[in-house]
Amino acid sequence: MIKAIGYAAAHSFSRLKPLEFEREPARPHEVEIEVLYCGVCHSDIHQAENDWGNTVYPCMPGHEIVGRVIRAGAQVTRHAVGDLVGVGCMIDSCRHCASCEEGEEQYCQGPNSWLATYNGPMKPASMNGGENSYGRDNTFGGYSTVVVVPEDFVLKVPAAIPPERAAPILCAGVTTFSPLRHWGVKAGDRVGIIGFGGLGDMAAKLARAMGASVTIFTRTPEKLDEAKKLGVDAVLESDKKALTGLAARFDLILSTVPEKHNLDPFIPLLKRDATLVAVGALGPMAGYNNQLLVMNRNALAGSLIGSIKRTQEVLDFCAEHSIAPDVEVIPIQDINDAYKRVKSGDVRFRYVIDMASLKEQEAA
Amino acid sequence: MIKAIGYAAAHSFSRLKPLEFEREPARPHEVEIEVLYCGVCHSDIHQAENDWGNTVYPCMPGHEIVGRVIRAGAQVTRHAVGDLVGVGCMIDSCRHCASCEEGEEQYCQGPNSWLATYNGPMKPASMNGGENSYGRDNTFGGYSTVVVVPEDFVLKVPAAIPPERAAPILCAGVTTFSPLRHWGVKAGDRVGIIGFGGLGDMAAKLARAMGASVTIFTRTPEKLDEAKKLGVDAVLESDKKALTGLAARFDLILSTVPEKHNLDPFIPLLKRDATLVAVGALGPMAGYNNQLLVMNRNALAGSLIGSIKRTQEVLDFCAEHSIAPDVEVIPIQDINDAYKRVKSGDVRFRYVIDMASLKEQEAA
Repeated sequence: MIKAIGYAAAHSFSRLKPLEFEREPARPHEVEIEVLYCGVCHSDIHQAENDWGNTVYPCMPGHEIVGRVIRAGAQVTRHAVGDLVGVGCMIDSCRHCASCEEGEEQYCQGPNSWLATYNGPMKPASMNGGENSYGRDNTFGGYSTVVVVPEDFVLKVPAAIPPERAAPILCAGVTTFSPLRHWGVKAGDRVGIIGFGGLGDMAAKLARAMGASVTIFTRTPEKLDEAKKLGVDAVLESDKKALTGLAARFDLILSTVPEKHNLDPFIPLLKRDATLVAVGALGPMAGYNNQLLVMNRNALAGSLIGSIKRTQEVLDFCAEHSIAPDVEVIPIQDINDAYKRVKSGDVRFRYVIDMASLKEQEAA
Repeated sequence: MIKAIGYAAAHSFSRLKPLEFEREPARPHEVEIEVLYCGVCHSDIHQAENDWGNTVYPCMPGHEIVGRVIRAGAQVTRHAVGDLVGVGCMIDSCRHCASCEEGEEQYCQGPNSWLATYNGPMKPASMNGGENSYGRDNTFGGYSTVVVVPEDFVLKVPAAIPPERAAPILCAGVTTFSPLRHWGVKAGDRVGIIGFGGLGDMAAKLARAMGASVTIFTRTPEKLDEAKKLGVDAVLESDKKALTGLAARFDLILSTVPEKHNLDPFIPLLKRDATLVAVGALGPMAGYNNQLLVMNRNALAGSLIGSIKRTQEVLDFCAEHSIAPDVEVIPIQDINDAYKRVKSGDVRFRYVIDMASLKEQEAA
């Protein structure tokens, strides 16, 4: 067994604290990765605090992992010891269902759906007649010194991206890139982005690099200037006159807001047949006015993270277009304060944990 | 001027009563049509009772009109005196915007949008800085002896369809046919239909004629047998076990329910990337759980009636496939009772007014 240490929540209202544990050694198709950096995703907080009612404790979050391969199973061909690699939200899937065969593992229809990097299978045994095809109830994520992952779910991190800035691409990046690609954003399109946090930052950079003109909708006046720095338009959500002036202009609107919100003010901004995709809110939404949808044959859609193929694609796309998330690197000892600041919208734009801080603590 | 008589509501809580009025004679591009039959649409009730807050009074409903051309303007080329014709929800549009040029007049982006068969332009002058490009604030619909309509908005009614049964195709038919076509329903697809009234009846027949297998979701146990008669499956909305068994099965779900309702129970029934289109409810909907949309990249969409081209297409399609709405023919004197029965879901499946009853009344 591999001795490891990480930060975990013992229950829904506890702070994250150090936890010593063991990981199983790499099987023939797996690699062992020393974690260098791990991004802090709003989902980490939702999961640690059991906001979705499905958390298994102890809960060790972290699914924006950048690290170095330190051991490779005998049958591994894609990665080698010393490679800089990434791990996102998934570490396995059933590999046999239609979604897996079509390269959309995030929609795995297998008996336990995909295996999340932390908190175990998406469909736990309790939802599947007691069966768990992965044999693991609770996976521990990247807030730790080491992870062991099947090679097919390990991404190559291009050298052109600073490793600490590559981390958020693995969730925030692909979660916004995937719908931009799926709904066919192209040069000359107009893309609206609701919410300007970690996902909004990436969405704006990615859409702009695709040649779209981007407008950010934010509730935070100070973020209007942040948008200018990115070279994109920004409008306050409360500015009804500005919204009216943008009627029927957008080919796609992406909502990155991580909580229940009202989408009605944004539907009239869509062109005919255009879609508003909400990727941030994984729960109840406000009611909507179907008259608004009907009037231009618009749609409200959801989209879940992105496939392994898309994740590699967005990493390569970021390298090619010299874009990366704006991050603030923190030691893991600051994680509980960081959670507070994420919840209050006080981060610009993504916290990334420097895992050296955990190794130093371990050594001390 | 043409002397006419129709049934109209004087205000939002009045019964419909006879109203004598005058129509302008046909202009060079218009035809004068003797109304033979007019369908009773749930929208007629919403409009007469001002449920959408935009009703102009007196309100004379009726947009499922079948009649005979009795006069044609000098420049009319498409229709001739004696032709059996139909008029649906629209009698004109701006004809110059992108939607009109692309043959989607129902999404007309002109200054007053399209001209509705009753209740005037979709965007009245009050929504357009006082301007009204049609010069008509309040159009009177088909609950009348005669209508005058630009020839481009007049449909040909195939001889194979009994004229009284053709009437509901002009709204209920095209409103369901248009999304079935837009979302590409084809042979072998599975289509779900929520609500089994006038729209649900047509949706089921049309989808089946396209080669899809159809499942109706109804709240009314007695309608399970009605569905069997059509040769389609039917499930009670309250039967949670049956719904669970239909997870991820449908290529498209169409909601025809004409009021606020909760779509969450139906989202998990969609295949990955499939859409649930609500065509019946033209107002607020219940909140929805975005987690459900996210989990299979699904969408909730709206769709508004259908274009003139689609309306002709659905009339021809019905003739070709020998399908037509189930109707109950009533004299216009029964219209207020009919409204009550529509509201209580007590009609199988569409009332159609025989306008001979109005002419007899006029003569008496």
